[in-house]
Amino acid sequence: MTIEVVKRSLLAVNDRAAEQNRQRLDAFSVLAINLLGGAGCGKTTLLEKLIPRLSRDMRLAVLEGDLATTRDAERIAALNVPVVQLLTEGGCHLTATLVQRGLAKLPLTDVELVFIENVGNPICPTNFDLGEHARIAILSVTEGDDKPAKYGHLFQIADLVVISKIDLLRATDFRVERAVGDIRKLGPDKPVLAFTAADPTTVEPIADWILQWRDRRNVRAGAEHNQAAVA
Amino acid sequence: MTIEVVKRSLLAVNDRAAEQNRQRLDAFSVLAINLLGGAGCGKTTLLEKLIPRLSRDMRLAVLEGDLATTRDAERIAALNVPVVQLLTEGGCHLTATLVQRGLAKLPLTDVELVFIENVGNPICPTNFDLGEHARIAILSVTEGDDKPAKYGHLFQIADLVVISKIDLLRATDFRVERAVGDIRKLGPDKPVLAFTAADPTTVEPIADWILQWRDRRNVRAGAEHNQAAVA
Repeated sequence: MTIEVVKRSLLAVNDRAAEQNRQRLDAFSVLAINLLGGAGCGKTTLLEKLIPRLSRDMRLAVLEGDLATTRDAERIAALNVPVVQLLTEGGCHLTATLVQRGLAKLPLTDVELVFIENVGNPICPTNFDLGEHARIAILSVTEGDDKPAKYGHLFQIADLVVISKIDLLRATDFRVERAVGDIRKLGPDKPVLAFTAADPTTVEPIADWILQWRDRRNVRAGAEHNQAAVA
Repeated sequence: MTIEVVKRSLLAVNDRAAEQNRQRLDAFSVLAINLLGGAGCGKTTLLEKLIPRLSRDMRLAVLEGDLATTRDAERIAALNVPVVQLLTEGGCHLTATLVQRGLAKLPLTDVELVFIENVGNPICPTNFDLGEHARIAILSVTEGDDKPAKYGHLFQIADLVVISKIDLLRATDFRVERAVGDIRKLGPDKPVLAFTAADPTTVEPIADWILQWRDRRNVRAGAEHNQAAVA
């Protein structure tokens, strides 16, 4: 009698789905950005401010991750962009499989950039590739300046760090230089931008970072395309 | 040939260690309270205010959970109570096994109440029994009033809910009645208390709740003891 051994690796299943997501996104020339951060750090609020600004330059869509409720998707739908609520039903992170089902519901031929808002949790989501092209980590000043040292992986994997709720800086003992110092230990060139919904001008550098990042990617993709044509 | 099947259940291992912790705590007549909540919701700050107040009435000790750094344990050590830092090294929740190792380092004969501060995460720690006798969930107003609906399990398992950072109420759009309404859907009699480090009087009702809870437990333990003596 032969004994069949079936090993199920949660991360292997996830990584396979993530790779499929990336291929599907690339086939439609859609970029995806994964937004990560603790509960209530301001991920949805940042999207509410970014979306009207970026909509001038590109067609957007959103996948909204949460454990329960469709409250965040309702906030995004009010901005007239396609949105799908992904419910983990208690799960502590988004999986690439769930994102795959979300992507299937988006009109990808009419989209250039998908924001994927992860579950509010600074730990578990950092271990799950969703097939995204970039990651933005958000840290609110009300969470405390000790968080980059405690939740290092979140800031390590981020392409951009946004420090949010800076209108509350004076109401807290958050020291920006301490937080940024700990972030820069994880990545000396890591861009860090400040944001508050109370000051609309603070969304501009974040929108600019996204547009420049997109342009750099497009140039690179174009070069690869030309190289392929020459070869 | 016999095939041996070894099933390793993470939760079963945890629950066994949790039961051992409870037995050990009970043998020393030590009560344990598990503090849970998101990153930066104010767990350590609440302890910093509770400890001097409760030290008048009982001998305390603290187990400080974090992914990395000993920063919280240093804050607690400054209050002159025994404290052990439990490091999960990236893990998203405390386990009963880690707590067991922490309890072994505390002078339990000289302690009446142990606070166990969990990892800053409103999701995963809610699934792991540590052997504690009560749970306090903390929600800061800066996290948003939608969190009880989104992170229901945290509030469901809590014996007491503390709404923290209420000095920032006016700086946010947090509606207390909305949050409390959603908490009460999960437990109609769930006690909810407001707290801010900026107003020392707000720690009093929380300290009172803990002392009354201890007295109720002691009365019950006494009654069980008398009943055992009669039988």
